[in-house]
Amino acid sequence: MLMKNERILLVNRPKGTPEKSDFRFEATAIPELENDQVLVKTIYLSVDPYMRGRMNDTKSYVPPFELNEVISGGVVGQVIQSRSSELAEGDFVIGNLGWQKYNAVSDASVRKLDPSIAPLTTNLGVLGMTGLTAYFGLLDIGNPQEGETVVVSGAAGAVGTIVGQIAKIKGTRVVGIAGSDEKISYLKDGLGFDEAINYKTDDVYKALKNACPDGVDVYFDNVGGEISDHVLRQINKGARIAICGQIALYNLEKMDVGPRIQSQLLINSALMKGFIVSDYAAHFEEGAVQLAKWLKEGKLSYSENIVEGFENTVDAFLGLFSGENTGKQLVKVAEPENV
Amino acid sequence: MLMKNERILLVNRPKGTPEKSDFRFEATAIPELENDQVLVKTIYLSVDPYMRGRMNDTKSYVPPFELNEVISGGVVGQVIQSRSSELAEGDFVIGNLGWQKYNAVSDASVRKLDPSIAPLTTNLGVLGMTGLTAYFGLLDIGNPQEGETVVVSGAAGAVGTIVGQIAKIKGTRVVGIAGSDEKISYLKDGLGFDEAINYKTDDVYKALKNACPDGVDVYFDNVGGEISDHVLRQINKGARIAICGQIALYNLEKMDVGPRIQSQLLINSALMKGFIVSDYAAHFEEGAVQLAKWLKEGKLSYSENIVEGFENTVDAFLGLFSGENTGKQLVKVAEPENV
Repeated sequence: MLMKNERILLVNRPKGTPEKSDFRFEATAIPELENDQVLVKTIYLSVDPYMRGRMNDTKSYVPPFELNEVISGGVVGQVIQSRSSELAEGDFVIGNLGWQKYNAVSDASVRKLDPSIAPLTTNLGVLGMTGLTAYFGLLDIGNPQEGETVVVSGAAGAVGTIVGQIAKIKGTRVVGIAGSDEKISYLKDGLGFDEAINYKTDDVYKALKNACPDGVDVYFDNVGGEISDHVLRQINKGARIAICGQIALYNLEKMDVGPRIQSQLLINSALMKGFIVSDYAAHFEEGAVQLAKWLKEGKLSYSENIVEGFENTVDAFLGLFSGENTGKQLVKVAEPENV
Repeated sequence: MLMKNERILLVNRPKGTPEKSDFRFEATAIPELENDQVLVKTIYLSVDPYMRGRMNDTKSYVPPFELNEVISGGVVGQVIQSRSSELAEGDFVIGNLGWQKYNAVSDASVRKLDPSIAPLTTNLGVLGMTGLTAYFGLLDIGNPQEGETVVVSGAAGAVGTIVGQIAKIKGTRVVGIAGSDEKISYLKDGLGFDEAINYKTDDVYKALKNACPDGVDVYFDNVGGEISDHVLRQINKGARIAICGQIALYNLEKMDVGPRIQSQLLINSALMKGFIVSDYAAHFEEGAVQLAKWLKEGKLSYSENIVEGFENTVDAFLGLFSGENTGKQLVKVAEPENV
């Protein structure tokens, strides 16, 4: 087999918004497999907003990426060589692997996928960490009750689209906040959100006031910053706020300053909790089964934005911060092989 | 019976720190009792920081006081006339009653006290709403585990002194923040806090860093503002923050602006929850029994600051905001009668 590996290194810690020059493509050899290792050819890789946080050299929920090392994230791939008794050539697997065309990893660091259950890409989206993030953040922290009002920011993003749909399944009024009229239409007409607000053109505070006549019971926050300030001013007694992401801040160079939220939580006996999906690792199975069930029943639809070509990975990642993508952003790196 | 009532009305909504001119003393007649009513002579009344919030005409956890109406709060009194089959003359009772020398109220609006169990005043403090506030905020929201570090602000106040002691009972390292060296000594030497920080003279961030070498697992917040910012920068993964009060803000005339806390909660999967003691009304009995047990066992001590004379009620209330009192602030209005 004569193959060359290509990989993407982080070579500068971005100041503010990442730039292409913060990354470097590098060609390398493919290592020899050791015992219990498999060589995984990358089919799809996932680019996610949280990865921006790992590019800083500061404490966060996951350790920072090392400088001049390969970046890692969610990858669906195919085993093309195996020295494992668990995995055979041709098997599809998922794991947290390097942004590279080939990963040589121990069989224990990936999980085998059954491609007959659902399209491969869903394992990185609605049935993967993205779906589980929406599932546990909304249901465990938000705990939405029938008839309540749920607001989700970053509503047209990978997580937001699923949050809104699960909230509808739970019988709530769902209001999404997103950044274009196209997204607004998609949320309302495509996904059944009750209302959607374009934060770029609407007066967010007033639009929310209209969209949430009974106030806000659950807020699923993907963005932070001023958009969230407007939501938090309208929470009800006993409100629950799940902090999933703060995309408005990831590229912020100065301290994030705004109204302190404590007195608002106090007068409403409200709860605010940050989380990362791995907090719920012990319950992943339960979540995945439920999501797959809803998907099969047609209660859950998903949206993917797939960029072709490994060489476009960095652009796909940078695009997350320009607010252009709808749904889950993936990169298709290669076609599966017929084994 | 020839008695005259005296009562205290709110006559202006304070802007910023309340002033004496916001209140008016008024002499009135004592109303005739109706069926099932009792006339309660005020023995002790409680002045509490949360009452400041009720002086504003804005939504809060309890409705605002009406202008030109009598202010109400926690009162321990004695029944001196009764048209109730439940309560007899001489009975001691507690209730949320007017700041007045005599309250004519239905027997259902007060609860009978047994003065042989503990001093009457403890019903407004360690065994009353104050103690229950500390108990439920710390144990339900903070959920401190042995060996963890608990920080409490407003530590020398009525609630803070009890929070710290319960946290010690639970086997945690307890660090208090208060505003004078006298208070610091009291917390450490009198109540067994592991460390205490004087926010007026110490560099709070650095002092906390030293006092909490393993970071902060639980923060019980009575004050808000910059002191809390310093604490929140040092929370651990999985931290729990109970928002009990925000005394730094009650008299603030402008919007409370500071570092937004969301990203700090996010990277630590931390929980922040506001509460008011009435959220736990269904569990008061359990809390009161446990507090009384600890008190009897000598595990809990309490500190009271008792001002004599109804005419000093407003001064006692205003004193809460100058940071001078230690422990529970009460006003003794009258001696109990021998019936």
